[in-house]
Amino acid sequence: MSNLKLVELPVVEPEAVPCCPPVTSAALSEGDSVRMAAMFKALADPVRLRLFSRVASHEGGEACVCDIQDVGVSQPTVSHHLKKLREAGLLTSERRGTWVYYRVAPEALAAMAGLLSAAR
Amino acid sequence: MSNLKLVELPVVEPEAVPCCPPVTSAALSEGDSVRMAAMFKALADPVRLRLFSRVASHEGGEACVCDIQDVGVSQPTVSHHLKKLREAGLLTSERRGTWVYYRVAPEALAAMAGLLSAAR
Repeated sequence: MSNLKLVELPVVEPEAVPCCPPVTSAALSEGDSVRMAAMFKALADPVRLRLFSRVASHEGGEACVCDIQDVGVSQPTVSHHLKKLREAGLLTSERRGTWVYYRVAPEALAAMAGLLSAAR
Repeated sequence: MSNLKLVELPVVEPEAVPCCPPVTSAALSEGDSVRMAAMFKALADPVRLRLFSRVASHEGGEACVCDIQDVGVSQPTVSHHLKKLREAGLLTSERRGTWVYYRVAPEALAAMAGLLSAAR
């Protein structure tokens, strides 16, 4: 097709973040714990966590499946894991031509890091 | 008993941490991804995450089951979750008299926060 369009795939709503004060400074609310636990669950699988780090550290801050196929699992499995990370709000995605490109959602990363940072 | 002893319960070995550079700066190794995914898995349950935050934010940085019973689950369930957090290396524990007191393992918290911090 000559008329190339940028298509944003659905992501978790922005109001899911920002969250929350450091765990060392305040107890999590029930609602926030559900949201944050879902994010940590997305990182609770070694292959998914590696893929997340591959996207995060890739040149330009984005990667397509074509860039990160060498983690020892099949391309459909890579795609499945990337989809899970996107559904959890940890990655955003954008289709450009043949490939879908993934980026870390900075506000999700900040929410997790902030929660786990030690309050001084 | 008049002869009160401090008994350290087993925890994950110290060499499990420190780990790792920020995800935005380098891809995780396979070994590190297994270790870190296990930590995130411990936080992937809303009740467990709330309990973790309750311990972390409790006065003096430590709490016993007696301090954190009001999260809507039974005391045996609280104890079960605290055990899981301890086994994952996120909490340390110490028996004093009747109760076991839990604290956040600062190096585990630092490892997770460091991994999720955005490299500049």
